[in-house]
Amino acid sequence: MAGNSFGAAFRMTTWGESHGEAIGVIVDGCPPGLPLDEQTIQKDLDRRKPGQSELTTAREEGDKVEILSGVFEGTTTGTPISLLIRNKGQHSHRYDHLRDLFRPGHAEATYFQKYGTYDHRGGGRASARETAARVAAGAVAKQILNEHGIEVVGYTRSVGSIEAEAFDLEEIEKNKVRCPDPAQAEKMADLILKVREEGDSIGGVVEILARGVPAGLGEPVYDKMDADLAMALMSINAIKGVEIGAGFGAAAKRGSENNDPWIFEAGRLGTKTNHAGGIIGGITTGEELVMRIAVKPPSTIGIPQQTVDRTGRAATISPGDSESKKRHDPCICPRVVPVAEAMVAIVLADHFLRQRGLRGAEFDPGKAS
Amino acid sequence: MAGNSFGAAFRMTTWGESHGEAIGVIVDGCPPGLPLDEQTIQKDLDRRKPGQSELTTAREEGDKVEILSGVFEGTTTGTPISLLIRNKGQHSHRYDHLRDLFRPGHAEATYFQKYGTYDHRGGGRASARETAARVAAGAVAKQILNEHGIEVVGYTRSVGSIEAEAFDLEEIEKNKVRCPDPAQAEKMADLILKVREEGDSIGGVVEILARGVPAGLGEPVYDKMDADLAMALMSINAIKGVEIGAGFGAAAKRGSENNDPWIFEAGRLGTKTNHAGGIIGGITTGEELVMRIAVKPPSTIGIPQQTVDRTGRAATISPGDSESKKRHDPCICPRVVPVAEAMVAIVLADHFLRQRGLRGAEFDPGKAS
Amino acid sequence: MAGNSFGAAFRMTTWGESHGEAIGVIVDGCPPGLPLDEQTIQKDLDRRKPGQSELTTAREEGDKVEILSGVFEGTTTGTPISLLIRNKGQHSHRYDHLRDLFRPGHAEATYFQKYGTYDHRGGGRASARETAARVAAGAVAKQILNEHGIEVVGYTRSVGSIEAEAFDLEEIEKNKVRCPDPAQAEKMADLILKVREEGDSIGGVVEILARGVPAGLGEPVYDKMDADLAMALMSINAIKGVEIGAGFGAAAKRGSENNDPWIFEAGRLGTKTNHAGGIIGGITTGEELVMRIAVKPPSTIGIPQQTVDRTGRAATISPGDSESKKRHDPCICPRVVPVAEAMVAIVLADHFLRQRGLRGAEFDPGKAS
Amino acid sequence: MAGNSFGAAFRMTTWGESHGEAIGVIVDGCPPGLPLDEQTIQKDLDRRKPGQSELTTAREEGDKVEILSGVFEGTTTGTPISLLIRNKGQHSHRYDHLRDLFRPGHAEATYFQKYGTYDHRGGGRASARETAARVAAGAVAKQILNEHGIEVVGYTRSVGSIEAEAFDLEEIEKNKVRCPDPAQAEKMADLILKVREEGDSIGGVVEILARGVPAGLGEPVYDKMDADLAMALMSINAIKGVEIGAGFGAAAKRGSENNDPWIFEAGRLGTKTNHAGGIIGGITTGEELVMRIAVKPPSTIGIPQQTVDRTGRAATISPGDSESKKRHDPCICPRVVPVAEAMVAIVLADHFLRQRGLRGAEFDPGKAS
Repeated sequence: MAGNSFGAAFRMTTWGESHGEAIGVIVDGCPPGLPLDEQTIQKDLDRRKPGQSELTTAREEGDKVEILSGVFEGTTTGTPISLLIRNKGQHSHRYDHLRDLFRPGHAEATYFQKYGTYDHRGGGRASARETAARVAAGAVAKQILNEHGIEVVGYTRSVGSIEAEAFDLEEIEKNKVRCPDPAQAEKMADLILKVREEGDSIGGVVEILARGVPAGLGEPVYDKMDADLAMALMSINAIKGVEIGAGFGAAAKRGSENNDPWIFEAGRLGTKTNHAGGIIGGITTGEELVMRIAVKPPSTIGIPQQTVDRTGRAATISPGDSESKKRHDPCICPRVVPVAEAMVAIVLADHFLRQRGLRGAEFDPGKAS
Repeated sequence: MAGNSFGAAFRMTTWGESHGEAIGVIVDGCPPGLPLDEQTIQKDLDRRKPGQSELTTAREEGDKVEILSGVFEGTTTGTPISLLIRNKGQHSHRYDHLRDLFRPGHAEATYFQKYGTYDHRGGGRASARETAARVAAGAVAKQILNEHGIEVVGYTRSVGSIEAEAFDLEEIEKNKVRCPDPAQAEKMADLILKVREEGDSIGGVVEILARGVPAGLGEPVYDKMDADLAMALMSINAIKGVEIGAGFGAAAKRGSENNDPWIFEAGRLGTKTNHAGGIIGGITTGEELVMRIAVKPPSTIGIPQQTVDRTGRAATISPGDSESKKRHDPCICPRVVPVAEAMVAIVLADHFLRQRGLRGAEFDPGKAS
Repeated sequence: MAGNSFGAAFRMTTWGESHGEAIGVIVDGCPPGLPLDEQTIQKDLDRRKPGQSELTTAREEGDKVEILSGVFEGTTTGTPISLLIRNKGQHSHRYDHLRDLFRPGHAEATYFQKYGTYDHRGGGRASARETAARVAAGAVAKQILNEHGIEVVGYTRSVGSIEAEAFDLEEIEKNKVRCPDPAQAEKMADLILKVREEGDSIGGVVEILARGVPAGLGEPVYDKMDADLAMALMSINAIKGVEIGAGFGAAAKRGSENNDPWIFEAGRLGTKTNHAGGIIGGITTGEELVMRIAVKPPSTIGIPQQTVDRTGRAATISPGDSESKKRHDPCICPRVVPVAEAMVAIVLADHFLRQRGLRGAEFDPGKAS
Repeated sequence: MAGNSFGAAFRMTTWGESHGEAIGVIVDGCPPGLPLDEQTIQKDLDRRKPGQSELTTAREEGDKVEILSGVFEGTTTGTPISLLIRNKGQHSHRYDHLRDLFRPGHAEATYFQKYGTYDHRGGGRASARETAARVAAGAVAKQILNEHGIEVVGYTRSVGSIEAEAFDLEEIEKNKVRCPDPAQAEKMADLILKVREEGDSIGGVVEILARGVPAGLGEPVYDKMDADLAMALMSINAIKGVEIGAGFGAAAKRGSENNDPWIFEAGRLGTKTNHAGGIIGGITTGEELVMRIAVKPPSTIGIPQQTVDRTGRAATISPGDSESKKRHDPCICPRVVPVAEAMVAIVLADHFLRQRGLRGAEFDPGKAS
């Protein structure tokens, strides 16, 4: 109801403000017997954390995760997993002058209208810092997926109007943009640096794939796989659009082009093409899941902006008033990648457990013993 | 868990197969004291029903709604509202030859993989017929919204590559495409008829607006207004993409262009531009909500298609095998409009009640007495 | 949220008023592939229906169930199962004079205070008629339990101060009180008839056993098996208390008496005694589940009672004003038995599916193939 | 689903094992603008903590609470409130010899059967230590209730067969048993000390009252106020029975005795007697809520007990094997009181917010401004 939980069978509840003591997440419903340690989670957190390259904010947050419960002697126990990340390096005083200002594109104004109050420091609960908790929970979800051969991979597909043309997944983590096309990645990086130099920011598109997803996941008619993925991805800060498979491209197509013929190959039902993005009728087909999300340009920029304060009085936010140029992300795509992967992993783990409950051994025969 | 319910405070549960006895919906959580009768609901159902124009399927389904509970002497009582729509005019024998065939783009194959069984007649539970139940529930939601001055309106924005250029909302219901631009509507209608003639189908884009939405609706961080709308809309049959405000357009923009400056006018906080589509940080700003959805071309076409049957054997679905040309929708956009409106209305009613619970009279001072 | 649904993985949503068109239930989350027909459900409904013996109300309601969805060719499909029971034999005019009166022990007054309105005819939504929907859903749950060798059986343990002393489960359905002790059953029946003769009513205790329940069901720490059973049973009309195992008797005991020693016999872990009633730490032990519920005397009696009307004015409800002596149940225990069984069956089916989702084949290896 | 959350509009999620790093709770859905600080929460925690008197365990746990989020400058913000209690003074090595033993009445065996693994130290997740998190969340709920004049008070009603005969609520916190009858309290204390001396333990009954509860709370037909209270209370460790109002006493009564006549006095609808315990049809009447719970004798005793280990081999737990006599509670009632109050407060706060969402200002006109 109050919106800080996500998932049904595999369920996370996150908490924490950008400049509070800490942020964290409770994962409930994780099966017992999975290996889990802090290193595993930290690896994904490090892909999200600020300060990882010159393309991201220079703020350093560390993002060290502690496992406080639910793991005993290196293995999950089936009880809630509590993960805590201390807030460090916060400079709350930097936000003192913003106490009463509503920054364009930021949520102080809407929190104020919703709650009648808000924590103005660093975006409070609305800060993208919250996504660290998602990444931590996603790392737990990935442990379930790993066991069943399911893999989730995300990458930056475009920055501004520069788009990837090659898709070599091995390249993604080798460049700072997290783009599978090294040539275009360089152009993207140049654009991002140029935009930063101008005190501005730029949007992009992130694409996420999921491989090895068994057929049969997704609950018609409202908790469809695509509906849950859309919710999961749209709930990430800065996301303004979600597509599955052909997405908006399908809107201009004919049925005869867009339909994916069913085939039976290598002992498995599948589709010849995959315009559907691996989901038909809200249920996975066994083909690769393909999703894209529209990432808006970050709202914090180094250019003076008009706005109003809490009392409605006009005000200007000037670069000096705002955080310094180096303390904002000119393009959030490289850091959105692990967050989007985490959300997709959580949805898949959740539906995996749901389907296993519905069908039992008919769906998941378990390990050979 | 099993996916046939939607909403939290205002919650619907739908049931029924295309060729079963009936379909229906239970609305739970509707406040007492609202006027409700069958005519009100029927009006929206008639906008969705098949056979309403030569642009839609020629099947006639009637779609007469009965209120079975929750209304006493013309007014809601606060108890569950059960709405029933009998299935009529079904010709199940038309599907006999499809009993074992997996139609491309249809969900028999995925239902079979999920459940190990399926009702092959007319799409069963996966049929778009289920959306009649959504429209019925949406009509109840609209009664709540009406009381508080909130209005939801949808229209066809494009069909294939023909796009509306004028947006006169008064025009929408005057043409069969439900397009706010009468000139383009004519071209769209021609295209749809041409496509039908060719035995094919075509996709499009539907846009939905919500006006008079108070600021403060939406629950960070997972039940954000945009996340819930994305889920609601993506759960509709044939939808492959959802955008809010600038949507994928934002991905190519700079922050300095995309940010909406806060303003205070006429005693109310708002934004000067509305690239955000009325939602910032997952919470409504008080500005108009703007959403777009990608509608794929209907999967049932009159052109022979390759596929396989339940046993994996290759098969051809030929026009004669499939339903006759006249019995499918060449473009589903005109009929998606009321369904999308209904889903948006349900999300808004739900979040209205949730916010009222959180804030009480501070949010909703009620009627003067 | 609005309270008309119950269960998580196996979930029912009920609707309907006593004197409306019909009542019904949607069962969502029932696994596919189970045999289900109307006869199976009807059998349990007939055990609950009014007019079944001279110990119950003489109202005849028929309670014929129709399956409207979710079953195809005699087998569940995994989609929602909609069950409908038409209301027949209602004499709403009998309630005309009660339109504005608040009957003692009845819920018109509290519904009025909650909703500002109520359907006064026959108790409206608060009528025990709603429990027919529970019994119908329970019959579906029992199909899941049957497949896994789990059996639920209930009986009248006491009426007034007359208590069963023998517990021969074969006897239960052979007498009208549904008591496992035929000798005491006769005394109970005599007491009930005497009480009816006096225009009064009488309470009792119903006991429910569940056998063959596998160890490991129940979700600590809030959805404990005992907590969910308590909620399920307390939600039944007229129930004022719930006990598990030794129940209130445990409150006067020493730990050394009350503890159940763990034993290992016949290849299975168990307990030597079963004061715990088959549940420790909220999780089933594999021993028999034992529950008791306190059933209050029915509120409708044939003796004049003081009360007030909607405007707060004092009023008397006299036998003639109320329904005639023959149209109320002097003791509801015999008819509570199938309702309590149904609720227990629903809780067990729900937790069975939840545990199967959590553990997969490690918990439920499925059928040999 | 996985059971570590409770409540709908006001929802808590708890985590943590007895001998892990810490335990804690996330409260989601708490309205903004309420005063909240650590002292307020600590006060209730101190009433639950071990070592508070010679009647309880001598273990010292401190139970210092930290607020990690959701409060800004002394006031709730509407975002999740994260409360953390570090585990201190754990002596995990004391449990080394119990690593493979199943203690009678304890949950190692059932956790093992459910999860295939368990944290054996101090009861792990099944430890009554988890109730500290409930008390912390309950203290938050009480802030909501306070604002609306609702008060919850609990006390020990009986220990073994010694029962309170006087009910002076002012006396409760003045004696170590938390009994409203000082004379009987002394006898209860003597009994508890005697039982401890014998290495045994003893059960009792705790009663909880709620005053000032407005009429209209509770959601028929499953989330009835009494059903939710039953679940809340039965979920507490060691509870084996729950009664509302006359409870099991009603089972032996006539309707003419048990019915509570409606009256209208002092401008308010109410009942002349209160056998119903303040709830009719699952909805509060405006009268005092009255609940009783059966508390079993603690399972840890100082007397040798037979049991088995994980492999099924017979074993004896002897006093020396078990914790020393001083490290267990001979009677848990005094410490159950604040836990039961907390659970009742959470249910009431939850239903208050739910009713406010349903009815808005018609139910809660808010503060005069």
